[in-house]
Amino acid sequence: MPCEGHSAKTPVMNFASDNWAGASASVMEALARHSAGVTPAYGSDPLTEAVSERFSEIFDRQVAVFFVPTGTAANALALSAYARPGGAVFCHADSHIQVDECGCPEFLTGGNKLVGLNGTGGKITASGLGKTMQAFPDGVVHHGQVSAVSITQATESGTVYGLDEIRAIKTEAFARGIPLHMDGARFANALVSLDVSPAEMTWKSGVDVVSFGATKNGCWCAEAVVFFDLEAARGFEYLRKRAGHLLSKSRFVAAQFDGYFQDDTWLATARHANAMAGRLAAGILEFGGRIPWPVQANEVFPVLKRSVVEQCQAAGAKIYEWPTSALSVEDAPAPDEVMVRMVTSFATTEADVDGFLSVLAGAEAA
Amino acid sequence: MPCEGHSAKTPVMNFASDNWAGASASVMEALARHSAGVTPAYGSDPLTEAVSERFSEIFDRQVAVFFVPTGTAANALALSAYARPGGAVFCHADSHIQVDECGCPEFLTGGNKLVGLNGTGGKITASGLGKTMQAFPDGVVHHGQVSAVSITQATESGTVYGLDEIRAIKTEAFARGIPLHMDGARFANALVSLDVSPAEMTWKSGVDVVSFGATKNGCWCAEAVVFFDLEAARGFEYLRKRAGHLLSKSRFVAAQFDGYFQDDTWLATARHANAMAGRLAAGILEFGGRIPWPVQANEVFPVLKRSVVEQCQAAGAKIYEWPTSALSVEDAPAPDEVMVRMVTSFATTEADVDGFLSVLAGAEAA
Amino acid sequence: MPCEGHSAKTPVMNFASDNWAGASASVMEALARHSAGVTPAYGSDPLTEAVSERFSEIFDRQVAVFFVPTGTAANALALSAYARPGGAVFCHADSHIQVDECGCPEFLTGGNKLVGLNGTGGKITASGLGKTMQAFPDGVVHHGQVSAVSITQATESGTVYGLDEIRAIKTEAFARGIPLHMDGARFANALVSLDVSPAEMTWKSGVDVVSFGATKNGCWCAEAVVFFDLEAARGFEYLRKRAGHLLSKSRFVAAQFDGYFQDDTWLATARHANAMAGRLAAGILEFGGRIPWPVQANEVFPVLKRSVVEQCQAAGAKIYEWPTSALSVEDAPAPDEVMVRMVTSFATTEADVDGFLSVLAGAEAA
Amino acid sequence: MPCEGHSAKTPVMNFASDNWAGASASVMEALARHSAGVTPAYGSDPLTEAVSERFSEIFDRQVAVFFVPTGTAANALALSAYARPGGAVFCHADSHIQVDECGCPEFLTGGNKLVGLNGTGGKITASGLGKTMQAFPDGVVHHGQVSAVSITQATESGTVYGLDEIRAIKTEAFARGIPLHMDGARFANALVSLDVSPAEMTWKSGVDVVSFGATKNGCWCAEAVVFFDLEAARGFEYLRKRAGHLLSKSRFVAAQFDGYFQDDTWLATARHANAMAGRLAAGILEFGGRIPWPVQANEVFPVLKRSVVEQCQAAGAKIYEWPTSALSVEDAPAPDEVMVRMVTSFATTEADVDGFLSVLAGAEAA
Repeated sequence: MPCEGHSAKTPVMNFASDNWAGASASVMEALARHSAGVTPAYGSDPLTEAVSERFSEIFDRQVAVFFVPTGTAANALALSAYARPGGAVFCHADSHIQVDECGCPEFLTGGNKLVGLNGTGGKITASGLGKTMQAFPDGVVHHGQVSAVSITQATESGTVYGLDEIRAIKTEAFARGIPLHMDGARFANALVSLDVSPAEMTWKSGVDVVSFGATKNGCWCAEAVVFFDLEAARGFEYLRKRAGHLLSKSRFVAAQFDGYFQDDTWLATARHANAMAGRLAAGILEFGGRIPWPVQANEVFPVLKRSVVEQCQAAGAKIYEWPTSALSVEDAPAPDEVMVRMVTSFATTEADVDGFLSVLAGAEAA
Repeated sequence: MPCEGHSAKTPVMNFASDNWAGASASVMEALARHSAGVTPAYGSDPLTEAVSERFSEIFDRQVAVFFVPTGTAANALALSAYARPGGAVFCHADSHIQVDECGCPEFLTGGNKLVGLNGTGGKITASGLGKTMQAFPDGVVHHGQVSAVSITQATESGTVYGLDEIRAIKTEAFARGIPLHMDGARFANALVSLDVSPAEMTWKSGVDVVSFGATKNGCWCAEAVVFFDLEAARGFEYLRKRAGHLLSKSRFVAAQFDGYFQDDTWLATARHANAMAGRLAAGILEFGGRIPWPVQANEVFPVLKRSVVEQCQAAGAKIYEWPTSALSVEDAPAPDEVMVRMVTSFATTEADVDGFLSVLAGAEAA
Repeated sequence: MPCEGHSAKTPVMNFASDNWAGASASVMEALARHSAGVTPAYGSDPLTEAVSERFSEIFDRQVAVFFVPTGTAANALALSAYARPGGAVFCHADSHIQVDECGCPEFLTGGNKLVGLNGTGGKITASGLGKTMQAFPDGVVHHGQVSAVSITQATESGTVYGLDEIRAIKTEAFARGIPLHMDGARFANALVSLDVSPAEMTWKSGVDVVSFGATKNGCWCAEAVVFFDLEAARGFEYLRKRAGHLLSKSRFVAAQFDGYFQDDTWLATARHANAMAGRLAAGILEFGGRIPWPVQANEVFPVLKRSVVEQCQAAGAKIYEWPTSALSVEDAPAPDEVMVRMVTSFATTEADVDGFLSVLAGAEAA
Repeated sequence: MPCEGHSAKTPVMNFASDNWAGASASVMEALARHSAGVTPAYGSDPLTEAVSERFSEIFDRQVAVFFVPTGTAANALALSAYARPGGAVFCHADSHIQVDECGCPEFLTGGNKLVGLNGTGGKITASGLGKTMQAFPDGVVHHGQVSAVSITQATESGTVYGLDEIRAIKTEAFARGIPLHMDGARFANALVSLDVSPAEMTWKSGVDVVSFGATKNGCWCAEAVVFFDLEAARGFEYLRKRAGHLLSKSRFVAAQFDGYFQDDTWLATARHANAMAGRLAAGILEFGGRIPWPVQANEVFPVLKRSVVEQCQAAGAKIYEWPTSALSVEDAPAPDEVMVRMVTSFATTEADVDGFLSVLAGAEAA
């Protein structure tokens, strides 16, 4: 029988990814609650409408919300709404759209080029952005044209852009007349980390469109493209359908969001995941591990002796080596070290973390 | 509260579409059963693997199965696996890929042209196909090149291709070296209608790839592209991911199929839906309605007096006028008539049907 | 030595296509005249600028002109400037964009669907257009959205739309908010046939953008996309470059147009070609051949006994059978007849025509 | 009158680009020679056939040749023949396909990603390539898949890959099962620089397909995609036509190549251009300028005092500042210096060069 539950007594040292978790109780209950009855398909049902209004409340202004089945689709479709022929999208060199989406943004935008910028801890900087965009002067057809800036919140390195950083990036984007997209696959984790409102982290700081992810934080399959720029949202339903991303039984996504938002479940699960990451980080630092950048969401990237990592893995810990391109030179691992990624989720328990830390404590540096 | 259940005593005269239904009990139970625990993402979990093997059992041979979130994606991606530059895909003029997918097949195939063939009752014919393909001779670059034939089973008109018809179409496709795709959005309805095995309705009759739909028959969101042509399936995971259709928590689709296939639920729900359509059709004929082609699955297309239709709608029936392009000249509605589409599903009850029929019986022709 | 000239005394009975001819003397002279000197590339040279202004003079208003290397590129790129996701382009079922461009319009528009309309003599009708567009109601995402109407002037059947016909088609397009594109591969032939001004045949009758062809009428390689809708032309240079259609030595196209327009050469060569077609048609009618629709440009489509055609071919005439889908039922060839296409050009001589007619006169119906 | 010739007495200090030149006498003569007569269109004429055979002779083996109108089209179409969904093409960060083609390679390949590698003097290295490709392991769908390696010969920096360098790069490409493409926009310049045979510089060193450019070296518009990998060439005519790049009067390209190859004109004009670049370089070095990498073809990239450059420009020299991303750190211009690009062509005369050098000699460093 695949996927059985685990005994509460055995810690699950699985930090592979937050999308290895299943659905939260709140989400499952909502799905069950809405499973019966006959209701219009393709998003014209009352539940989808109600949940869309809920998004406007959460963001403190009218938004245009489009459900999509995957985070990759959310990103690529959001960018396609702003695509230009020969367009260039500026993002971090390690961002999900650049390295983990198999060219989906390029494909759905008709071949826009993703220009990867470097930046410590997975963040691009306003100054780096400004400088990079100089290679794409307006009106020089050969070089193509700037089309969008995309940042990831929380980043692929588990850090979080401060509001001032977002605003500075917006300033550069605005100066070139292009929108600011936020890949919010871990939106909730960043939000509770900053302790600001959804409005503050997005449109009040200059974000035009968000890929609002809920799957990693307790849903089965619930992603949304949320436009603050209502003009750009016009016609988006055609972009979504043309790519095969309009779900027929739309209420099944709406139901998940219904459970997700109910009683602020989404904030609670994100806080929990972040807290588990903090607990992990504290333990690792205590052990003597090195963590090159702040742990601000639900991911920890410690640099450890390779032998230590291997001992943890041998003891059952699911942790994996991670590329170090986001590291500055001085933080680079020594030859006998590796950087690993550890991700926590709503389903991670203190026992899971402590179980791992006790294995770690027992490991011996070779 | 949207989407509440309805009292068993009030018939739901909703025949708008089978995707207006929710999820069946069997599917919801399976989702709940598999919601806990940590398991690999992106389809490398044991449940996805187990369900994939189940597909091979069901089809009596090794198949390559790829889950996708929508039927449109299934169709367009399947065709993209066979796309050729300047390619032409032959299908019925009323087929879903031609009229209901917002150009998704064209987009995902890099601009392949969908060539719509006429044919009574939603079916293309082998002879019509052969004749149409003559306009695309091999090696004449201007006209492009033939790339695939696609049939819908059950058709958009609620009819079902017989095995001999499928084989005759395959013969034409084979002669030109192109594959035969089956849009099986209502695969189960056709299967139980023909009372043959999945193997007989597909690869044994020459089908190379199926869009295997389960959403309309009781799932939330469970579609699969099933290749019998394993060579063509190589690399398909890249086509799927490039279009944003790789689901991270793959087990949530696998779980639905697990519940769908359990105890042959899928065949039972399809039989039920077909039976409800048959009951509808019988009552309509008894009333004096005209049904231009056989009712072979879960859709009924009666031609009724417009005044009768309006009275039914006024009484709460959800039935809609339908284009009559699939009708032969002699069957065309008279000026005071319209053709309507009525769809039944796993959730349609005898009371729902009978409720409608009693409204119909009370309607008076103007 | 390939491609040598032919003796003036031997008639060249080659009516295969007008793109089988070479370059006219006027064009060759202009190319030679402009071959020396150093001048900016990519269209910022003074000659390109001067020729662009010449276009504005010819069309009696400011136009935006973009040179492209092929007529197929001109059509597909013009349509791409108006492309919408899931867009539908309405054109004649026999039009070049539909049957002779290997899916280029579909490809360059991101998968827009070409909807082929029937119509005698290669012309669509306003009423047929209006009716067909009803299948694409605004706001129904499944069916996609209307994006453009394209007519061919002169048509693929050698007929010419009258100004009233163009205006009526424009009315339908305008009502749906979409542009009217004119494929002017044989623009000059139609123009001199109607004996109106370029302005009258285009923007004064509602045309928004023209594929202005000169290659068939005496150039080597000179095509242009001419926008009257200057707003739509914004950014077109990116569409052109993104598809690889920006020529580096732009002056070589400009030079051809320079020669083409000089002393109204283009009108003279078109008049000549049309006259040769008229001479052909007159002779064929005299012989007893049947020509189903008016000969209004430089193409003749006679229906002849198959045995007669074969005798002409045996005598060296390059004439080919042509599909008859544009024929009304009553005009359809009898079993022993075929329709053939015959095209004349600037290079066709009276001797060529008369040579053919004398062969025809000697043919005996089997 | 635009584009008039210049007096032999006034030097033309125009080093902006080799595509600012017109057509060579040999090419113009060939065009005139082949302008008359009627011959099949779309490449089935005898001249196109004869020239195609000439390509096979030049390359010492059977090749598949396809004429296209632009170098950008040649590159993008060649890469499209090898495109994979989610594919990655490895090239120099400064290569034409990466920075000067407005996303055409991305567009025509369905969104393949161009991964730019650094490398001094415009060259990628085998070791850099191998290391970069490690980020695209086979079978990891998220990262996409390797699809091609592209080198430019001569490079955008005016250097030339040695045969050993090409072979080393091929070894890395071969190890990953992907082809080696050569952008030969300045093929002839590189060839005479290396003093090897076309076969040695291409297929004998592992090149699978070449964008064979002739436009910059004396043609109007003559580019070809030359496949040594005949299997990959199958179906290429559909890729070309689908993108609108099949020229109707194909003989006009064939004629240019006829003149280009006649009496080895192409090698002579390339040698001349290279010699003019050498003369320029020698003079600049003598003046005290710095040239960071070898001058091996027809481009010179001197680093000069900004004040000197401005004085030359004021005197009429067409030279432009060039980005220095291909420079190593130690070669980077000082704050008061700039790097400029200077390009020579078949039309550059010794007087042109000497005229510039005498202006340079008179310039005073501020």
